[in-house]
Amino acid sequence: MSGDCDFGLIGLAVMGENLALNVESRGYKVAVYNRTTSKVDDLIAGRAAGKNFVGTHSIEDFVKAVKRPRKLMMLVKAGPAVDAIIESLIPLCEPGDIIIDGGNTYYVDTERRTKTVEDAGLLYVGAGVSGGEEGALKGPSLMPGGSKEAWPEIKDMFQAIAAKVGPNDDIPCCEWVGPRGAGHYVKMVHNGIEYGDMQLICEAYQLLKELAGLSNDELYDVFAKWNEGELQSYLIEITRDIFSVKDDQGGDGYLVDKVLDVAGAKGTGKWMSQLALDLGVPSTLVTTAVFARGLSAQKDARVRASESLRGPGAESNPQWSALTESVIGDKQGFIDAVRDALYASKIVSYAQGFVQLQAASTEHDWDLDYGQSALLWRGGCIIRAQFLDRIKEAFDDQPNLENLLLYPFFKDAIEQCQPAWRRVVAAASIAGIPVPAFGAALNYYDGYRMDRLPANLLQAQRDYFGAHTYKRVDRDGTFHSEWLDLRRPVS
Amino acid sequence: MSGDCDFGLIGLAVMGENLALNVESRGYKVAVYNRTTSKVDDLIAGRAAGKNFVGTHSIEDFVKAVKRPRKLMMLVKAGPAVDAIIESLIPLCEPGDIIIDGGNTYYVDTERRTKTVEDAGLLYVGAGVSGGEEGALKGPSLMPGGSKEAWPEIKDMFQAIAAKVGPNDDIPCCEWVGPRGAGHYVKMVHNGIEYGDMQLICEAYQLLKELAGLSNDELYDVFAKWNEGELQSYLIEITRDIFSVKDDQGGDGYLVDKVLDVAGAKGTGKWMSQLALDLGVPSTLVTTAVFARGLSAQKDARVRASESLRGPGAESNPQWSALTESVIGDKQGFIDAVRDALYASKIVSYAQGFVQLQAASTEHDWDLDYGQSALLWRGGCIIRAQFLDRIKEAFDDQPNLENLLLYPFFKDAIEQCQPAWRRVVAAASIAGIPVPAFGAALNYYDGYRMDRLPANLLQAQRDYFGAHTYKRVDRDGTFHSEWLDLRRPVS
Repeated sequence: MSGDCDFGLIGLAVMGENLALNVESRGYKVAVYNRTTSKVDDLIAGRAAGKNFVGTHSIEDFVKAVKRPRKLMMLVKAGPAVDAIIESLIPLCEPGDIIIDGGNTYYVDTERRTKTVEDAGLLYVGAGVSGGEEGALKGPSLMPGGSKEAWPEIKDMFQAIAAKVGPNDDIPCCEWVGPRGAGHYVKMVHNGIEYGDMQLICEAYQLLKELAGLSNDELYDVFAKWNEGELQSYLIEITRDIFSVKDDQGGDGYLVDKVLDVAGAKGTGKWMSQLALDLGVPSTLVTTAVFARGLSAQKDARVRASESLRGPGAESNPQWSALTESVIGDKQGFIDAVRDALYASKIVSYAQGFVQLQAASTEHDWDLDYGQSALLWRGGCIIRAQFLDRIKEAFDDQPNLENLLLYPFFKDAIEQCQPAWRRVVAAASIAGIPVPAFGAALNYYDGYRMDRLPANLLQAQRDYFGAHTYKRVDRDGTFHSEWLDLRRPVS
Repeated sequence: MSGDCDFGLIGLAVMGENLALNVESRGYKVAVYNRTTSKVDDLIAGRAAGKNFVGTHSIEDFVKAVKRPRKLMMLVKAGPAVDAIIESLIPLCEPGDIIIDGGNTYYVDTERRTKTVEDAGLLYVGAGVSGGEEGALKGPSLMPGGSKEAWPEIKDMFQAIAAKVGPNDDIPCCEWVGPRGAGHYVKMVHNGIEYGDMQLICEAYQLLKELAGLSNDELYDVFAKWNEGELQSYLIEITRDIFSVKDDQGGDGYLVDKVLDVAGAKGTGKWMSQLALDLGVPSTLVTTAVFARGLSAQKDARVRASESLRGPGAESNPQWSALTESVIGDKQGFIDAVRDALYASKIVSYAQGFVQLQAASTEHDWDLDYGQSALLWRGGCIIRAQFLDRIKEAFDDQPNLENLLLYPFFKDAIEQCQPAWRRVVAAASIAGIPVPAFGAALNYYDGYRMDRLPANLLQAQRDYFGAHTYKRVDRDGTFHSEWLDLRRPVS
């Protein structure tokens, strides 16, 4: 038995509720279910009143309410809850029905679940959903992957609810990503890039505040201006906004100054870093950003350390300090230099993210379309930015581009920014302001463009103490040398 | 039935053979076994000829040859082989027998195997073994953990074969580390610190070679001199040696210049990085070192990039470039500055390693003794250095020291090195030489000593787009604000 709903949604936290409302608003009839059934009643009596919804109080009724082939989407906490719901849905579903996980799921789980659900004769979709609560309601970025046969069934609905971009606002930020866990992997890389963007913005903020002494009003103006140029993006825009918000708890001054400097995290940045380590690709920006959040969380330890550990004295490097002072002293010049450092670092961060996507796609045989990934992130999601149009263009032009840094547009942009980027990292090092992400980006750029790195010495060390062997620059083969016997005799 | 051997060793690759010879040389009778039994015969007829060895050709004969309680040690490739041997040993062993894994095992496997073996009524030891082939033969660093009741049985033998340190060369680099996987975890952190040390030495090498133009002969002298001071260590010593080795394949010049700059890795540094991410502790040095090896491995991509991506032009930052030139131009001054940068970065690296050990010990309830870990690394192993005496002293003095950077000796050392460290990172940034580990260390130091990091902005962003909530600096509780409604209206 099946009902007449076009879509079913399980999990009525804010994201789920908003996504259900979004689907209904596009002309679809929506069945909803939540384990705590009072949430169903609240929604039906509240935000869904008068709308095309069917509230259900059991998983059986929920499945029955949806027409075949069913599109049943979960928006619940990633982890065992997803497995439990899948287990309860499988016996109730019929061939061709589609189970969709819209949570922040680790892609390995999605790889496994695709197989489980397909083995049960059903279809499975792991869909990355980005855009937060507002995006879920008005148009998220959607990154679906899994059982390819599901795509024609859900395409119209998913593209209808997704964010739209392009000159005519008609290009949906939703396309089929690839098999199994590909959708959740692409979403994870989105989140990892988001970690990098946020850390870079924070470093720019600290430099402008601590070194150049900018007020929140001035910071508002800086970010407003940046948002009109190449850095235009949702994160720059909300950063601008944040500097205008007054304390909403009755205190004087700005709210941002009242917020404790202890960063939380949900784990997707960590996953991306750990997977980069597994793949052997140096995604240093996201990893630096994750570690920076970790250090921020050691607030008590930092407060104690701040009373004990000394920073640079201006007298210790007088010429360098004088030069740093002169750089900072030119306020507008310094603001522009920080902008350049941020832009160049951001390009490196995205370049690393796409290198990791390429490595993962090869490893898992996903055949990802990189330009399309850029398009999916063009709207709806947290990292949305005009900048992503350039990335899409780059991959449209050169589908096998091995690194964004090599594409003329980004190469030129880095070259423009490079002098200021170097000056900012140097000045921060002298002045004692931490710029881990600006620094990691610059070091990646300088390492990547070196035909010769000092790893020859490292390989020599490994062969010396562990007989790990090495290769040579001038002939093929694998070598081991008796360094101890060959060395200059030590008296 | 049991024989009269004091010890049994399975796995006759070089490490196993050397360790067996080491045990025998201390007056013990040793049974050996290897799956490919010709290796047993080769050893008995060769290096073990005339020595107190019993070669066996089956696992049954091997077990029978050893007296109870048996000490049976595996030195085989970490992974499924270890499980297979344990499975074959369990039915042959008797209560109180001890199975020992001396391989480079992931500590989670050792946690699991300890339980399996204890459930079978036997004892299990996961022992970190460091020192390479030479150490195995002459005296390695040993880090045993697992079934505590095993320790009194193996202590004399393990301490007899271990490296010795101290003024009278009588303090063995072997003590009981803790329960279950603690020994292998400590060994993993040793290896991670080794990654950091090697990367830091490579960065020093590249700076001295590329910027100051030092020849291999000059580099030999620099490292020889460094090895007489605070940097004295095995890795500095072999680095010195390496610069004296001529090409052994008939070519002109030095061997180090013929070695391909593509670093290999066995995975323990990666594990430590991934576990740091899980623990939320910023072990940035080992992670940077792992990523640097990854970037080195992209040799072909780097060669292509080097033809396309431009470095800094001296004209783009004239004042900064002039200052950098003047720093480099004072050759001895620059050598000393690089030494200071290396020493300060090394202190940060070890501080991070011990913070991770503390976090892991708390998480797993291992009750690690940190001073003792430093002692275990004092000799025999790859990171052995006088420097570790200072770390031992610090933890003996303050067993709950939360970070080595706060201990007066290291605090003072960093303060001495700080001006040059900053100058070197600044100069490298301007000159375009990658110094990811020097930079990561400096950024950790500067971040750690900040009572206020810019994570307040990051938390504001997270609350703005995802309602992730935040804490305040001035009152308890968890807050969420409607930033979008509170922001300055945008036209």
